[in-house]
Amino acid sequence: MPVEAAQEESVLLRSLLEVGMSLASAADRREVLDVVLREARRLSRAEAGSLYVVQDGRLRFMAVQNDRLDVSAIQGALLGHEVAISSASLAGFVCVTRKALNIADAYHLPVGTPFRVSRSFDAATGYRTKSVLALPLTCPDGEPVGILELINHVASDGRVGSFGQDTGEGLTMLVSMAAVTVHNYLLQEQLRKAHLETVMRLSVAGEFRDDDTGEHVRRISRSSTLLARELGLDSAQVELIEWASPMHDIGKIGVPDSILLKPGPLTEAERRIMETHTMIGADILGEPQNDLIATARDVALSHHEKWNGGGYPHRLAGESIPLSGRIVGLADVIDALISKRCYKAAFPVERVLAIVASGRGEHFDPAVVEAFFGIRDEILEPYTQTPPPEEHLALESA
Amino acid sequence: MPVEAAQEESVLLRSLLEVGMSLASAADRREVLDVVLREARRLSRAEAGSLYVVQDGRLRFMAVQNDRLDVSAIQGALLGHEVAISSASLAGFVCVTRKALNIADAYHLPVGTPFRVSRSFDAATGYRTKSVLALPLTCPDGEPVGILELINHVASDGRVGSFGQDTGEGLTMLVSMAAVTVHNYLLQEQLRKAHLETVMRLSVAGEFRDDDTGEHVRRISRSSTLLARELGLDSAQVELIEWASPMHDIGKIGVPDSILLKPGPLTEAERRIMETHTMIGADILGEPQNDLIATARDVALSHHEKWNGGGYPHRLAGESIPLSGRIVGLADVIDALISKRCYKAAFPVERVLAIVASGRGEHFDPAVVEAFFGIRDEILEPYTQTPPPEEHLALESA
Repeated sequence: MPVEAAQEESVLLRSLLEVGMSLASAADRREVLDVVLREARRLSRAEAGSLYVVQDGRLRFMAVQNDRLDVSAIQGALLGHEVAISSASLAGFVCVTRKALNIADAYHLPVGTPFRVSRSFDAATGYRTKSVLALPLTCPDGEPVGILELINHVASDGRVGSFGQDTGEGLTMLVSMAAVTVHNYLLQEQLRKAHLETVMRLSVAGEFRDDDTGEHVRRISRSSTLLARELGLDSAQVELIEWASPMHDIGKIGVPDSILLKPGPLTEAERRIMETHTMIGADILGEPQNDLIATARDVALSHHEKWNGGGYPHRLAGESIPLSGRIVGLADVIDALISKRCYKAAFPVERVLAIVASGRGEHFDPAVVEAFFGIRDEILEPYTQTPPPEEHLALESA
Repeated sequence: MPVEAAQEESVLLRSLLEVGMSLASAADRREVLDVVLREARRLSRAEAGSLYVVQDGRLRFMAVQNDRLDVSAIQGALLGHEVAISSASLAGFVCVTRKALNIADAYHLPVGTPFRVSRSFDAATGYRTKSVLALPLTCPDGEPVGILELINHVASDGRVGSFGQDTGEGLTMLVSMAAVTVHNYLLQEQLRKAHLETVMRLSVAGEFRDDDTGEHVRRISRSSTLLARELGLDSAQVELIEWASPMHDIGKIGVPDSILLKPGPLTEAERRIMETHTMIGADILGEPQNDLIATARDVALSHHEKWNGGGYPHRLAGESIPLSGRIVGLADVIDALISKRCYKAAFPVERVLAIVASGRGEHFDPAVVEAFFGIRDEILEPYTQTPPPEEHLALESA
């Protein structure tokens, strides 16, 4: 090997090592996917690119980058989008065949190509997708875990042209590293899902006696997570709220059957006992040893406080109510209003919106109400799709 | 750079890349720590070595390797052992100073050295620890996350001598990678602990009404985990039992106050309702979507079955009872016998051992009983240290 080639290789390997370091040190689980895509684009000189991972038998769109466009605004709409693993799409085709695909012009595919390249991104942004290098990410055992799509090769003169036929050793090695990384990411996600699912199911236990199907805690977790994200909390805080919110009513376990299951309206004394479920929940969750328990405790204790100080158990007002409690409090009221219960029909959406709007600054934090109105269609989606199951929860929060 | 040097570097970098790959693909979380130590020993030509990680302000011994000895037998006793972060030990000193330490002979330390090198390992095994290269693993932000101890440098002629003063670029780079890897491992462990702690606390909810302090579920989880390990289950299965066992009584939530809290003995009809807690638990955990929920469901449903078919709810016998249920069943009975309850004193250890022995092949799986007697001191440790808290659980399993 001549000196120059050896030195060049050494530079390449060093840069791959750096990739390994940034992969290992990515703070956020999803960040590794962005690092993989960024480094693959750098090595292949691609102006843009996407990354899909295989999840539940489908290809899930997980990263998008484009040096010419600011994709941050449209990212939210794109990420999480799923494609079937079939020859009908470019990514699906590469996943099925497990072979790299080098396309000179995505708008002029060879006759007989089984897939079409969607032009919706280009139509929405004015971008012109030309050359594409699509690489399958396969584990050593041959299992496909994702697809890298590298878009528009930029030559040294700055012009967009085709990707070379030889993708280069650096890219090949990066693809191996990327496959292992994505595989690892998927294993971690699987474990995280199993843990969260367990917390969800155990949280339902608190409502077991009043006949909940468990959908209530899932809907509350979903709405609270969306509200937290819309309020601009960082991903770690959003995740804490996703996990903590299902446990909000765990303290109902401590409310006696005679009160929790009473068919008629509660007496004043009974209502007071019913309200202790907030403090019992905090007791069950106990001394916070970590952020998750601390947040779950905050939520259990404060999700019935009101912005104007008229809630319970501590009549806290304004920002002295933890933000997590203000978020879950609104999600809980909306769920109670919009669900059919044994003693009331489901309220029509318009009435729910009116109640939330009129509670702004009284029952609810104005900022949380605004976040809700910013994404109300997304939040209300599970309620409008299929009629929610009948529930027997007291509407004490409305 | 001359050709040979460049090529040598390229070989080194390639081997580091391979390290990166094996780190990323380590199936078991702890396996990465073994990979780090093995590769560091290879690059430094060390015959033996250890790895400590910083956890809860102490140095925890997490990996030990020795080419000359079979350490598998003593590994169990060594791993998990903790050392204070202070100048009194070699690892502690390196962690405090954050500087590499190169020792020619551990038995002849320079005058004024603040620490002593423990000779207990050598005394027990006949090994002679001579040269030591101790390297701090520090994150880019300077935070120490662990210590690598490389022991007995082997020269190309096979003789043990000192480590070179220049540790080499390869080892330096590996140490950076190792630090990031260990940091990552610690973050994942932290998350896993927070999740498990949450499951523990929610599981206590099932016993909230009968006044349990939560120590019961922790003790059951501990004993079940030890039994599973002693029975030779692999680490993934042991972990499933660690997580699933705290949820064994979650179905008690569905038992009415009038029965669960009844002071006197239960009637036959009440006992039958009490026994439904197994099926209610399985119901609450629901359709298994993953191994964890499947195991938790098995445990909730079958922890009151008996080996001879005389248990409930399904009068299963022998190996048709899931192994997880047989393990938790024994752990649960032992805990009930040895704990003080409102209606009974704590049984003396001898009586508990006699009951377990006489239940061998009747109430209990003989293999699980044997595993228990193999590690009975370790299992009974939490019961003999401090008197267990008073509990009000029905002793229906004894």
